[in-house]
Amino acid sequence: MMTSRRSSSSPLEKDLSPFSLGKGTKCPPLTPGVMRIYSMRFCPYAQRTRLVLQYKQIPHELVNINLKHKPKWLRERYPAGLVPILEKDGQVVYESSVCNDYLDEMYPEPKLTPSDPFKKAEDKMLSETFSKVIALYYEVPASLANDTFPVTLKKYLREMQRYENALEKRGDFFGGAKPCMVDFMIWPWFERIGVISVVAPETDITEDRFPRLAAWMKRMYEIPAVINTYEKPEHHAHFFKTLREGSPEYDHGVLQSNL
Amino acid sequence: MMTSRRSSSSPLEKDLSPFSLGKGTKCPPLTPGVMRIYSMRFCPYAQRTRLVLQYKQIPHELVNINLKHKPKWLRERYPAGLVPILEKDGQVVYESSVCNDYLDEMYPEPKLTPSDPFKKAEDKMLSETFSKVIALYYEVPASLANDTFPVTLKKYLREMQRYENALEKRGDFFGGAKPCMVDFMIWPWFERIGVISVVAPETDITEDRFPRLAAWMKRMYEIPAVINTYEKPEHHAHFFKTLREGSPEYDHGVLQSNL
Repeated sequence: MMTSRRSSSSPLEKDLSPFSLGKGTKCPPLTPGVMRIYSMRFCPYAQRTRLVLQYKQIPHELVNINLKHKPKWLRERYPAGLVPILEKDGQVVYESSVCNDYLDEMYPEPKLTPSDPFKKAEDKMLSETFSKVIALYYEVPASLANDTFPVTLKKYLREMQRYENALEKRGDFFGGAKPCMVDFMIWPWFERIGVISVVAPETDITEDRFPRLAAWMKRMYEIPAVINTYEKPEHHAHFFKTLREGSPEYDHGVLQSNL
Repeated sequence: MMTSRRSSSSPLEKDLSPFSLGKGTKCPPLTPGVMRIYSMRFCPYAQRTRLVLQYKQIPHELVNINLKHKPKWLRERYPAGLVPILEKDGQVVYESSVCNDYLDEMYPEPKLTPSDPFKKAEDKMLSETFSKVIALYYEVPASLANDTFPVTLKKYLREMQRYENALEKRGDFFGGAKPCMVDFMIWPWFERIGVISVVAPETDITEDRFPRLAAWMKRMYEIPAVINTYEKPEHHAHFFKTLREGSPEYDHGVLQSNL
């Protein structure tokens, strides 16, 4: 569906580590006043925050991490050693939902969160309970292996239907005429649907089963923030395969894209 | 440590279902303009929200649910069928962190969330990453059974240390001189420490290992909101035992307390 590549297409993003940094590396020196994100090229949680950085046009430095052999300075920032982590002028923020809310308050234009308390709660419910879809997404390969796939699929379709229904009420995007935080919090797993739909076609977001979500995906693929954080399905699939085999190739596709 | 009981001690709370409501029951009719919480007596997530309702002195109706045989009207409000759920004048909010943020905006006095974006992010990081302590808490019984307890304990103590360190910077409570949202988001698992420390004394919050957390627990036990949502350790332990056996006694201790 998409052929463009991230690295050269976004002047907002200064990639300080085209090759991911692991154990024994030094942390690139910080630039005062500049936002930095510690990320991993294929991490959907980090992508949530990269989408918001892009959509809000926040200039930032990108530092890619080798999460299998983590540098010591990553754990100094967040003991759990997970990405995304934001850092700017000594302020460190981690966990994707916290990072995104922080960015939405620090850089309020365009605002991605409603100010009405109940509307805000409605958006948070859609963002937070997407964790159920995520869990089922990762359950698919295992459920195929142990013959429990029909049960997993039934739950997956039921949970996904909630997002189809929400779009019916909301419009072109979860934010109505424009994307809101919900769109960016759930998007990374839609970009990765191709990884599971290859082995389980029933999980695909097709026009006949989920017409509104399918149309939403097409619209999302036209947004610069989505284009600028995009990785090809075959790259996601390759990364996922190497991750499951225990040797994740964090730099897969980098050379190719930097040529 | 405590002997007082919840039911009769809080005029803020109208308990519509001293015995939990299950399959085949009718939902008690709603009262216009009155906040309602669907809860389960021993659920730590529901307690998070009951603590905030109490601390903010919000009059509310309590409806206790039998989560093993859920009433149909529970899933009509939240398809996942989990508690807490708030309902008032047709507005339904679920997931404990969403419920608590919603209450903090709808009933701003006393405010439990800082307005500074970075301070807000710091509080959210403490609240959200407590899920790692929670996971380890529930891992203790299994780890004792399969001899992996030393590893689980090491992780548990390391995660808990982060909260000890945070108190050192913050004061008597996570909110400084007074409790903030963090205090109420993490409290329910401290009330339940007795359940695991009986079988694994190393998990206890003792003055020699965690002096600040131990002092904080004593202070928390003096707060009316904590007193009014309190259940005795032996009740928690009994509930947990029956839950693991597959026959959770949701109403354990009710008769006794209503005499």
